[in-house]
Amino acid sequence: MKYFGASYYPEQLDPAEIRPDARLMQEAGFNLVRLGEFAWSRLEPEEGRFEFDWLESAVAIMADHGIRSLLCTPTAAPPKWLMDQCQEIYPVGVDGRRREFGMRRHYCVNNVEYHGHTRRIVTALAERFKDNVNVIGYQLDNEFMAEQPHCYCETCRRAFQAWLLAKFGTVEALNRRWGTAFWSQSYQRFEQVVLPRPGHNPSAMLDLHRFFSDAFLDYARLQTGCLKAVSPEKIVTHNICSSGFLYLLDLHLLGAQLDVVAVDNYPLSWTLENEYGNRDDVPYHPAMASLALSIIRGLRHAPFWVTEAQTGRTFRPRQLPEPGMIRVWTQQEIAHGAEAVLWFHWRQFSTGGEHLLQAVLECDGKPRRRYFEIQQTIRDLQAVAPKLAAALPCPDVAIIRDFDCDWALDDGRTHPDFRYLRHLYLYYRALFEQHVNADIIQPLADLQRYKVVIAPALVLMDETRATHLHQFVQAGGTLVVTVQSGLRNFDNGFHRTTLPAGLTELCGLEIEEQNALKFKDTTGLAPLDGGFAQGRYEASLLFELVKLTTAQPLFQYTDLWFEGTPAITANRFGKGTAYYIATVPSVELLRELFTRILTNAKVLPNLTASSSPHVESIKTFKEGKEYLHLINYTRETQTARLAERYESLNGSETFASTVELKPFGTAMLQRVSYEL
Amino acid sequence: MKYFGASYYPEQLDPAEIRPDARLMQEAGFNLVRLGEFAWSRLEPEEGRFEFDWLESAVAIMADHGIRSLLCTPTAAPPKWLMDQCQEIYPVGVDGRRREFGMRRHYCVNNVEYHGHTRRIVTALAERFKDNVNVIGYQLDNEFMAEQPHCYCETCRRAFQAWLLAKFGTVEALNRRWGTAFWSQSYQRFEQVVLPRPGHNPSAMLDLHRFFSDAFLDYARLQTGCLKAVSPEKIVTHNICSSGFLYLLDLHLLGAQLDVVAVDNYPLSWTLENEYGNRDDVPYHPAMASLALSIIRGLRHAPFWVTEAQTGRTFRPRQLPEPGMIRVWTQQEIAHGAEAVLWFHWRQFSTGGEHLLQAVLECDGKPRRRYFEIQQTIRDLQAVAPKLAAALPCPDVAIIRDFDCDWALDDGRTHPDFRYLRHLYLYYRALFEQHVNADIIQPLADLQRYKVVIAPALVLMDETRATHLHQFVQAGGTLVVTVQSGLRNFDNGFHRTTLPAGLTELCGLEIEEQNALKFKDTTGLAPLDGGFAQGRYEASLLFELVKLTTAQPLFQYTDLWFEGTPAITANRFGKGTAYYIATVPSVELLRELFTRILTNAKVLPNLTASSSPHVESIKTFKEGKEYLHLINYTRETQTARLAERYESLNGSETFASTVELKPFGTAMLQRVSYEL
Amino acid sequence: MKYFGASYYPEQLDPAEIRPDARLMQEAGFNLVRLGEFAWSRLEPEEGRFEFDWLESAVAIMADHGIRSLLCTPTAAPPKWLMDQCQEIYPVGVDGRRREFGMRRHYCVNNVEYHGHTRRIVTALAERFKDNVNVIGYQLDNEFMAEQPHCYCETCRRAFQAWLLAKFGTVEALNRRWGTAFWSQSYQRFEQVVLPRPGHNPSAMLDLHRFFSDAFLDYARLQTGCLKAVSPEKIVTHNICSSGFLYLLDLHLLGAQLDVVAVDNYPLSWTLENEYGNRDDVPYHPAMASLALSIIRGLRHAPFWVTEAQTGRTFRPRQLPEPGMIRVWTQQEIAHGAEAVLWFHWRQFSTGGEHLLQAVLECDGKPRRRYFEIQQTIRDLQAVAPKLAAALPCPDVAIIRDFDCDWALDDGRTHPDFRYLRHLYLYYRALFEQHVNADIIQPLADLQRYKVVIAPALVLMDETRATHLHQFVQAGGTLVVTVQSGLRNFDNGFHRTTLPAGLTELCGLEIEEQNALKFKDTTGLAPLDGGFAQGRYEASLLFELVKLTTAQPLFQYTDLWFEGTPAITANRFGKGTAYYIATVPSVELLRELFTRILTNAKVLPNLTASSSPHVESIKTFKEGKEYLHLINYTRETQTARLAERYESLNGSETFASTVELKPFGTAMLQRVSYEL
Repeated sequence: MKYFGASYYPEQLDPAEIRPDARLMQEAGFNLVRLGEFAWSRLEPEEGRFEFDWLESAVAIMADHGIRSLLCTPTAAPPKWLMDQCQEIYPVGVDGRRREFGMRRHYCVNNVEYHGHTRRIVTALAERFKDNVNVIGYQLDNEFMAEQPHCYCETCRRAFQAWLLAKFGTVEALNRRWGTAFWSQSYQRFEQVVLPRPGHNPSAMLDLHRFFSDAFLDYARLQTGCLKAVSPEKIVTHNICSSGFLYLLDLHLLGAQLDVVAVDNYPLSWTLENEYGNRDDVPYHPAMASLALSIIRGLRHAPFWVTEAQTGRTFRPRQLPEPGMIRVWTQQEIAHGAEAVLWFHWRQFSTGGEHLLQAVLECDGKPRRRYFEIQQTIRDLQAVAPKLAAALPCPDVAIIRDFDCDWALDDGRTHPDFRYLRHLYLYYRALFEQHVNADIIQPLADLQRYKVVIAPALVLMDETRATHLHQFVQAGGTLVVTVQSGLRNFDNGFHRTTLPAGLTELCGLEIEEQNALKFKDTTGLAPLDGGFAQGRYEASLLFELVKLTTAQPLFQYTDLWFEGTPAITANRFGKGTAYYIATVPSVELLRELFTRILTNAKVLPNLTASSSPHVESIKTFKEGKEYLHLINYTRETQTARLAERYESLNGSETFASTVELKPFGTAMLQRVSYEL
Repeated sequence: MKYFGASYYPEQLDPAEIRPDARLMQEAGFNLVRLGEFAWSRLEPEEGRFEFDWLESAVAIMADHGIRSLLCTPTAAPPKWLMDQCQEIYPVGVDGRRREFGMRRHYCVNNVEYHGHTRRIVTALAERFKDNVNVIGYQLDNEFMAEQPHCYCETCRRAFQAWLLAKFGTVEALNRRWGTAFWSQSYQRFEQVVLPRPGHNPSAMLDLHRFFSDAFLDYARLQTGCLKAVSPEKIVTHNICSSGFLYLLDLHLLGAQLDVVAVDNYPLSWTLENEYGNRDDVPYHPAMASLALSIIRGLRHAPFWVTEAQTGRTFRPRQLPEPGMIRVWTQQEIAHGAEAVLWFHWRQFSTGGEHLLQAVLECDGKPRRRYFEIQQTIRDLQAVAPKLAAALPCPDVAIIRDFDCDWALDDGRTHPDFRYLRHLYLYYRALFEQHVNADIIQPLADLQRYKVVIAPALVLMDETRATHLHQFVQAGGTLVVTVQSGLRNFDNGFHRTTLPAGLTELCGLEIEEQNALKFKDTTGLAPLDGGFAQGRYEASLLFELVKLTTAQPLFQYTDLWFEGTPAITANRFGKGTAYYIATVPSVELLRELFTRILTNAKVLPNLTASSSPHVESIKTFKEGKEYLHLINYTRETQTARLAERYESLNGSETFASTVELKPFGTAMLQRVSYEL
Repeated sequence: MKYFGASYYPEQLDPAEIRPDARLMQEAGFNLVRLGEFAWSRLEPEEGRFEFDWLESAVAIMADHGIRSLLCTPTAAPPKWLMDQCQEIYPVGVDGRRREFGMRRHYCVNNVEYHGHTRRIVTALAERFKDNVNVIGYQLDNEFMAEQPHCYCETCRRAFQAWLLAKFGTVEALNRRWGTAFWSQSYQRFEQVVLPRPGHNPSAMLDLHRFFSDAFLDYARLQTGCLKAVSPEKIVTHNICSSGFLYLLDLHLLGAQLDVVAVDNYPLSWTLENEYGNRDDVPYHPAMASLALSIIRGLRHAPFWVTEAQTGRTFRPRQLPEPGMIRVWTQQEIAHGAEAVLWFHWRQFSTGGEHLLQAVLECDGKPRRRYFEIQQTIRDLQAVAPKLAAALPCPDVAIIRDFDCDWALDDGRTHPDFRYLRHLYLYYRALFEQHVNADIIQPLADLQRYKVVIAPALVLMDETRATHLHQFVQAGGTLVVTVQSGLRNFDNGFHRTTLPAGLTELCGLEIEEQNALKFKDTTGLAPLDGGFAQGRYEASLLFELVKLTTAQPLFQYTDLWFEGTPAITANRFGKGTAYYIATVPSVELLRELFTRILTNAKVLPNLTASSSPHVESIKTFKEGKEYLHLINYTRETQTARLAERYESLNGSETFASTVELKPFGTAMLQRVSYEL
């Protein structure tokens, strides 16, 4: 672990308050603070007049206490004097109304004037701190796209048209590939193209998603350029919002731009259910944050930072962070590859739009429960840091995640409750509960590193992708393809060949019909051989009727008119096997199914069992050693049944069969037999 | 049956794809396609430059396969170049925002420039195909008012003022009849009048509904004029949307304009519950589409067309169309008087806003389940076509339906869940389940053809209507008047005489109080004589307290403070009887009540019983013969108990007591005794 | 009782209809009508041309029947000709859209042109009737702020900036106190300040609430000035909307401006649940209207008027007013201090936006149930009027209510279901069910008159308030402080001292953590001594963890990680006791707790028991005599167990132990022993 710390806002404080805070931070074990995130109006009170002394002073006081600083470019909150100069900087909502001052990120990402302002403040910041060794680097802006990011202003319309011109070359190509003949929407010139709105042409909507993802990537590049031109050696990062579940920005492309990836991680307050539609009614499961951290690690397959870690309640009344949760979340982050954890935030704000959020300290600045829990957590982890630092998971299983597929399915028409990441999570969680770790990878990533690859709802398919999957199975891999895969081309149009396009031979079947179930309706499934536990299993949302060519059925539907037709199949192909899952199975069914898939593929679980599905096991590897992290997210004692012999990190104790985990307790073990 | 076929979109296809499609259509038994519905941008790529060759070619290829064409005027989707000329064509929503390009029907129906564009394209279309014998006629536009049709632009405001001037003559008359003294809303000049919004003056809102209904009728007339001026002999029709439940357009007046009425019929995907508020939670009942088809037949009391018949799932996850449903729906349409059935649509779109809708064929164009079901259905029906063609129902019972009443109650204030057509459907369904067919008629239609007339919620009442009803009962008819009838004048103001205005003597009672129940609350009813099955019956939504003058009570309330007061009454008047139902009874109560009403009125049911309420029986008549259609909408075998002796259409078999209907099975019989 | 009557709208009637109405009113016992409320377009059909004859004539006809008139200024509904002169009078919604004509209160309260129009019509009205003895006075406008009252127009923005300048003096002070450093929202000039929208800076939002409350108070003052300049002796009142639950206007300040306070009281159709969010699912409880009437009486601690009393159903299907409810509500109003009751309204409107509302009479003008119930109620009350007139409650218990606290918590972020008045009502209802009356008072009111003072969620705290509370307890008072109290300063920022700020010594504890429960979650509480009934009690919404210094715990939490920590405490301070309730207890818990608090504080209940919680007891006092009003709001017979000896008002009967109350029955008694 390199860094522990917090976000800190000296621009809101009397200078005299900073030193006592720094002392308390030092006593907590902090060595990094994040500063200046929204401080533009304090850094540049009027155009061209910079006031950086207060920030430099804060950096210096922190340094006096052994704490270095990560500075943020303040562009997520342009000040009023700047906005007053140019109304066009305010973005325009999908309702056609220009946004007004009063919240944050009130800028159109494509606005050229705003790009100029950005260069000025970012360059000035970089210049001022270029020789300051206590500043380790910069965070770009804050949580790109955390606010409604699609802007419908004139600037964006013209930029979209230029983007389309570059992509399609001719308007005839656009008309053909978007299918504008439908509803007489053909264009004669790119200048006629409108910014599509939800419900409009689905091909246009997919390109709109791509366009705005590109726009934010360009804006990030603009800032990185300014910073690197001055300080090429300082780290550039960005704090990805939505606990890593942000899906409007292609994070694989963002990750490639950054020195290190960072995430703002709120396991209780922001999950993918919040990201998609702010569902509040989904109970906490630690597999959710586990997925988020696997996503983030997968962006660069490298250690990452947690720039905001949840300390307490946020806005909404969600499940409460209990004592012990800060500890287990920190352990989870580190096991998944975090090498910095900065809590949000140091001390509860007295005023402003987030004054109800809990922090390390209350408003009165007295150390209490959360402070002491963090202090103890840091102490415990630093004791084992030398062994574990830079150890990373290296799993046998990977799940393919593709941003374009998420965008293609974003209109909710396939089924309002069928969402791409939610579907992916179903599979991740099934593995989690079977104590199997998984990487999250891009479609064209190297698959040969893995024994099993899952492709959930890989709806956009072309020959390259199909070939890539074929090669993996041909060579002996186990592939799991799920419902919705292979239906559409990269323009979001349905393939006009038999579905799943490109996969019919690999999966040994043809899709005859695609259907959606109403609301919360379910359909029954039954196993077709005695290897599975018998009984009625359930599936929901979507189901396809398939005709098998070479595949063998594993489960069949038991309801209505599609009773007796295959729902889950397996197909030998080359040296490998391709499974096809034509519906959205329940957790119980997936448990049953994956026991077989993993066994057949010779994937060994980290544990043979645990007394609760809320126990996580993460294996990490470093320099020929293998470590096992066990985390109990419950308020009861739990047991974990080991698959191998382990010993404590200091070798003092050996564990051959089970480990007992205290309430919100953790264990870090190293494998004994591995070294033999 | 004259025609079977589908909607077809050659403008989206490579020309080479058309001929194979035509061959498959021919093999399915098709003889009509519907073309060109939204093809304006292909027909006129820039103003005045017409490209009709591709359409003519498609017509010709179809003709080569024995398939004729119904061409659509493409005005539901004006192209971008046209819209770019005149922003005022875009309609303005009730929120004051001008709509933008990207969906369909982005035109203000009152826009004069748009009328010019319409005349040009419609006339050009008519001219091009006037001598083409394979074009049987034209469909006007597509589904008038299927999108939010009330426009709040300046043009409409001025048109509304002119419409009011023509109606009222003086602003003083408007002030008096609208009651503008309330809230100081009096006008001095027509130019001051605003387009009312939901929640505004209810008299103004009723006139707004009338105004926009008139506007669309005028627009239809404009198009018909262009077509008939060129080709007076070609059929003009229009595909009424919302499965016939469209209520914003006075369909009686539209029907009078057309050569033949057509409907787009989606029994699972669009019911009156969708039309009113898109309720998704109402289970399928075949009485709903039965009502729709009776509505459509009643517009001209003549055979009609089904321009779009549902083949599979549409956008939303609604109940799934099962195998066999295409068959029973087709049977239902024909029994009710359809002489053309065109399925929607031929082949699933690859792109565009409806690419998720199922069609006869999937995207890959291979015949599968839906194709074969249609093919078999056509074969079976053509075998009996000569006997049944142009046979029509001729029921003893009629239900009065009035568009103005629907509009008067549209604000939902009487009770948010009390909707006009929903109330009417309650009565239609009661008759359906008792195997009694009903016509849907206008208030001033000839009532003497019927034994029983039901007037559900005939809220607008004047002397003419009241006299018409009196004469019917006087002469021996049986009239059923329900809650809300006779409350208001034609300006939507409450009558200031005792209620139900004009009906107190006919019904033998006076309304003392009108009340609405909360939410889902119900109130109990109990029968007052032993002729009814005893027990507690339920009513909901609304209940009136009535004081009887000459009427006899049949049921009384059993709850709360109105316990023991009459709820349902009968009054002898002249040679007939007028029933009054002061609340919204449950289905069970209506079954009990109508058994008596129908028996007393000597209305004989088509069947004495069926084993499921989802069995429909429709009697049709032609040239002195009587036919009985039996349809089983369930996936179980059902039995129908005959009231008379029937034989199979070919006379080979006689049925004296019961008929067994297979799952999704049908029977067509002819009456034996009838010919004696 | 001075007045009984109704609202009456002669501007909607033929003159010939007025006299028969007046006769019926007289027979009902009426002696006051409310006229002219929305009649501007009839009073001034074009600018400067006044037509007052019709109104004068109506006043005269009423006077002929012994009925005097209360005239309303018609400013809640400016006519179309006026609006056409100046579009800027229309207010702008929070969505930035300017409202349009068609409803009512379509004026921006800060518009200077509208102020001019107001002065003209109000002065003209005053001049015309200044010598008319039958006009007793004026009602200002109608139901201030009943429609969305916060306007976002340019005028309001500038007025807000001026208001801020007057308040803060310098923009630096504003920046500091609002905490604009957060999210870079610092201003350089007042001209830059925007009107905050929900979700914006909470300090700015609190000032927005204050600003608009002030704006309506200024507008009321403008009208009062015009009226008093002409007729200083005529009464000026205003009909407070929302059954008295209006919370956007500081009613304490409004009350101080008026000669008499008036309220529009709809016990079933508009409760605080409607005011906050239009919840329809809360069952009727008579404590709700009891609270409303206590609020209204507390504005001036004097008799008040009911300008609109509910007669029947209104728009929405809410619980129905049953026979007898008009009677018990009237009794409730009078017992709480009403000296005028005017029902809404005389006769159901035939037309206009409220034509579905029931009135004393139906549209046909025939006396029926509601008329006769009112007639009998008036007769009964007038018989006892001489004894009871001007008798007022004088309770031992008071509840502090502060409008700024309501506004501070209005953003719903603390917990969406935690609302200020809802929380206050919880305590009022607990007292109601224990037959203890309570005054509603301002924070700095004289507390020494009371034995027990409850301060629910007194979130804004400064030294003055804290000192005031200390002094009360020091001197022997019993204070109940609840969750959320003492957290913030008057700028809506959290205190940076230990919480509850200013109250830690008084309550003997410190708040360690503040938490919110999810949704409908509850937490358990258990008593800590045997004096309470044992068992599990529940609390919801919010809970704080507190550390006791000198306080004694009474109840502790029983759930989760805060199990065993104190939830309700008592602290001796000086001669008194301060209770602290750190959560939102259930009604059952409050009953248990308050039995002890009241007993310890020697507060005696009006009754020792009643057979239903829907029996209300109100003690009133006048000239050394004590009266007891008992009201049964149920449709069953109930009994009330007396705490003292009472006799009937005429002394004919004595009650020593119990009184039986008929369904919807009432009793008025005078205390016997009191006179000894």
